[in-house]
Amino acid sequence: MAKRQTIREGDTVLLYLNKRRSYLLNVAEGKSFHTHKGYVQLGDLIGRKFGTQLRSNLDVEFVALKPTLRDFIFKAQRKTQIMYSKDIALMVMFSGIGPGCRIVEAGTGAGALTTALAFYAKPRGRVYSYEIRPEFQAVARKNLEKAGVIKYVELKSSDISLGIDERNVDAVVLDLATPWQVVSQAYVALQGSGSIVSFSPTIDQVVKTAEALEDNGFVDVATFECIMRGMQVARGKTRPQTLMTGHTGYVTYARKALRTSAA
Amino acid sequence: MAKRQTIREGDTVLLYLNKRRSYLLNVAEGKSFHTHKGYVQLGDLIGRKFGTQLRSNLDVEFVALKPTLRDFIFKAQRKTQIMYSKDIALMVMFSGIGPGCRIVEAGTGAGALTTALAFYAKPRGRVYSYEIRPEFQAVARKNLEKAGVIKYVELKSSDISLGIDERNVDAVVLDLATPWQVVSQAYVALQGSGSIVSFSPTIDQVVKTAEALEDNGFVDVATFECIMRGMQVARGKTRPQTLMTGHTGYVTYARKALRTSAA
Amino acid sequence: MAKRQTIREGDTVLLYLNKRRSYLLNVAEGKSFHTHKGYVQLGDLIGRKFGTQLRSNLDVEFVALKPTLRDFIFKAQRKTQIMYSKDIALMVMFSGIGPGCRIVEAGTGAGALTTALAFYAKPRGRVYSYEIRPEFQAVARKNLEKAGVIKYVELKSSDISLGIDERNVDAVVLDLATPWQVVSQAYVALQGSGSIVSFSPTIDQVVKTAEALEDNGFVDVATFECIMRGMQVARGKTRPQTLMTGHTGYVTYARKALRTSAA
Amino acid sequence: MAKRQTIREGDTVLLYLNKRRSYLLNVAEGKSFHTHKGYVQLGDLIGRKFGTQLRSNLDVEFVALKPTLRDFIFKAQRKTQIMYSKDIALMVMFSGIGPGCRIVEAGTGAGALTTALAFYAKPRGRVYSYEIRPEFQAVARKNLEKAGVIKYVELKSSDISLGIDERNVDAVVLDLATPWQVVSQAYVALQGSGSIVSFSPTIDQVVKTAEALEDNGFVDVATFECIMRGMQVARGKTRPQTLMTGHTGYVTYARKALRTSAA
Repeated sequence: MAKRQTIREGDTVLLYLNKRRSYLLNVAEGKSFHTHKGYVQLGDLIGRKFGTQLRSNLDVEFVALKPTLRDFIFKAQRKTQIMYSKDIALMVMFSGIGPGCRIVEAGTGAGALTTALAFYAKPRGRVYSYEIRPEFQAVARKNLEKAGVIKYVELKSSDISLGIDERNVDAVVLDLATPWQVVSQAYVALQGSGSIVSFSPTIDQVVKTAEALEDNGFVDVATFECIMRGMQVARGKTRPQTLMTGHTGYVTYARKALRTSAA
Repeated sequence: MAKRQTIREGDTVLLYLNKRRSYLLNVAEGKSFHTHKGYVQLGDLIGRKFGTQLRSNLDVEFVALKPTLRDFIFKAQRKTQIMYSKDIALMVMFSGIGPGCRIVEAGTGAGALTTALAFYAKPRGRVYSYEIRPEFQAVARKNLEKAGVIKYVELKSSDISLGIDERNVDAVVLDLATPWQVVSQAYVALQGSGSIVSFSPTIDQVVKTAEALEDNGFVDVATFECIMRGMQVARGKTRPQTLMTGHTGYVTYARKALRTSAA
Repeated sequence: MAKRQTIREGDTVLLYLNKRRSYLLNVAEGKSFHTHKGYVQLGDLIGRKFGTQLRSNLDVEFVALKPTLRDFIFKAQRKTQIMYSKDIALMVMFSGIGPGCRIVEAGTGAGALTTALAFYAKPRGRVYSYEIRPEFQAVARKNLEKAGVIKYVELKSSDISLGIDERNVDAVVLDLATPWQVVSQAYVALQGSGSIVSFSPTIDQVVKTAEALEDNGFVDVATFECIMRGMQVARGKTRPQTLMTGHTGYVTYARKALRTSAA
Repeated sequence: MAKRQTIREGDTVLLYLNKRRSYLLNVAEGKSFHTHKGYVQLGDLIGRKFGTQLRSNLDVEFVALKPTLRDFIFKAQRKTQIMYSKDIALMVMFSGIGPGCRIVEAGTGAGALTTALAFYAKPRGRVYSYEIRPEFQAVARKNLEKAGVIKYVELKSSDISLGIDERNVDAVVLDLATPWQVVSQAYVALQGSGSIVSFSPTIDQVVKTAEALEDNGFVDVATFECIMRGMQVARGKTRPQTLMTGHTGYVTYARKALRTSAA
């Protein structure tokens, strides 16, 4: 989140109409954007501040917001299976990831989780992200560039189950179909007390991963899920939303204990 | 999360016994720590790596983990009403807070949320935290020092409902009994497109806050709650945990739209 | 649930294809039913037992199930706002309704809840169901006839907020927009210790109703909601369902205390 | 729920103090009951109506409620593992159990579920309840007598996994550690289209049971759980309750398809 508040040519803005409709767009002189509520001239935003309103030719108001991490995550998500920003937030919190951390991630996918890891690790941390499917790596690179965090990420195309190149990393973050196969490699890559955190949709994946963690020298192994429930807030008719996402996946985390003993 | 891996005199360690018992302790030569599983000599950890195991005189194994943000949050929590790390994680994610952000917070309380905000905003960001109760400020200062983030925080003792000194901040974060009374002040302090995020246990607080946001030039107003459900994972008998925290509070967030229009 | 097991002309069957598709149909000689999986001859079921399989001309198997209460509820629901069978089940349980009970209900709506009340109260109980919108009463009558419980129900077209004709009833069951306006009438109609139970989608309705109950001589006032979560069960990939209904409504119940005192 | 409204010697009443404290007691002339709020003379209730108030010698008011099914379930529960009235309500609804049904149940346990099945099946239905542990059968008998439903129940001491004596029953209801071992027996006992419903705390039990159902001629196999969330309702501070039961168990149900085909 740069300190600059004025919109320039080439900036990405989130053009907000309402809760259901907003658009992540690049600002360019002479470029117009068409919606069912009329079109807007994106060039009019140049030299204005983020947060400025913009009227369409049909006199409908849009707001030119500065995109946050969550907007980039949401945008990146579209091409692979969904991991929600709620899950990413909790994986970051439970693994202790923050500015300056060195993190191994697998797989990169479309780069949604990678974007978040790089965002929180910057400016001095780094994300080493493994992905064996080249088509995903290309998508991820684009998403990381758009979110402005590509310089904190090293995209790697080797198979993480064959080994991790890095050592003494602060955290290993897994979003894989078979996370349990990477647990012993993760142990080697992590520094003492380092965190591993894994995201899996099914209970069977969770059980295998938790067992592998217990068997490979990790402690404080725990699994949870986060159910996020939207509220419809309006005086006199407030209520939880009718439809909700019932399940995205389970988060399993643990910390590496060394095999040495001080006493 | 410093890069240093070796434990020194004065370091804080999380002495981990099992899921229910772990202790946040300062390491000192000659200092012993007594538990129901025997005592350990904390001085034995000096010169060892984080993650090292430590045996008590009753031959029970402990692990000397490096505390993460979540451990400091949990520790700080004890003296005020509880906000869970799940809620803090989601407030950070939804407000777009990250390295370099300038953040206004109220109230400081025991500093649990302040610790998290400072942790994610460091090294170049800053938290301006308002608290009118001096006894809390003292507790918060101690907790922030222990977590190593006091240098990123400015503790302020003025009443935030009378005005916010800062301008062009990236986010305003509220954990107050009457958040709606601060909304117009928050609008003034925020830069265009900046985020406000508020935590409240009751629905009535949520309704008043959401209304104040709608009335004061904020857009994308939304409220949700996060229900975290622990899993008891063991092959052949996996199940959700019997007891859970049913409710901590609701998170309401919004973004500031400017009153100016580009077109 | 009659003891007869053989299907006769005029019987209602639930023609089951799979979890997403089943059809409530009347059996008649010479009547065929067309689906995207081919057509079946319903007359072939006459003289067969409930549970019999039936092949379509495309050789796809259907099962002719005997409809249960839940199937009739689901079918009746389609024309008004939705109350789920989970909510009906809990309202019946918490109000203590069972065989032999005399119950006042308002409003009748399309008769889904009425069907359930009559089903559990039969053969000697009776439901007095109030509805001021004549078009709903006609729909309800049809649904109650189809479910075979019309003889246990008295459909009434007067406005329940103006008074309840019955006295000493076991339970009053409310599915109204303004349930709090009926609470004092319900007190008069109920016998001592009788139950009132109300279903409302919004929190504001709940607060007003709970207050009216406390103010009108009811005790044991409580409110809850029931969140039903489907599981996708399959060895190796078991998980909660992705989409779920996040909210239908809140159930509020209470019991009538008499104003007399024994000591 | 008998129509009689006047309390007699020997009746069971629920002496209600507040939400946290109520007592299931037998009324007898000359019998007093002592609480931390003073003592009451239960004999004073004789000849009074259910719902009457009763003052203790310390002038605290109690209400003499007529116990409902749920009160008897709650009371019966105390000696075995807990199944909540919410789960019982949903098992009854999903299996289509109601007045007149013939039901096989295993195991009897302390009779909480048996009480509910008998309550809904009466007056002409019957519950055949299997239990191999004689000590439980004795407890169950007492609880069924107290709830007034023993005459609708046949308590059986044979091992249900060795066979079910009954045929053409409407429903089989299981609360067993290994329900999958009873599925083929249940198929034989059920009439065509009859329901089976099983309650299990763990996911592993659910998977084995669902597989056994699919393999043994059942259709419409489905599993769900019901999460019940209490609300703390008070104008200006309404909110979900802080603590809740996160998990009791999963309900799995299915219906019997015959192996014969009409076409």
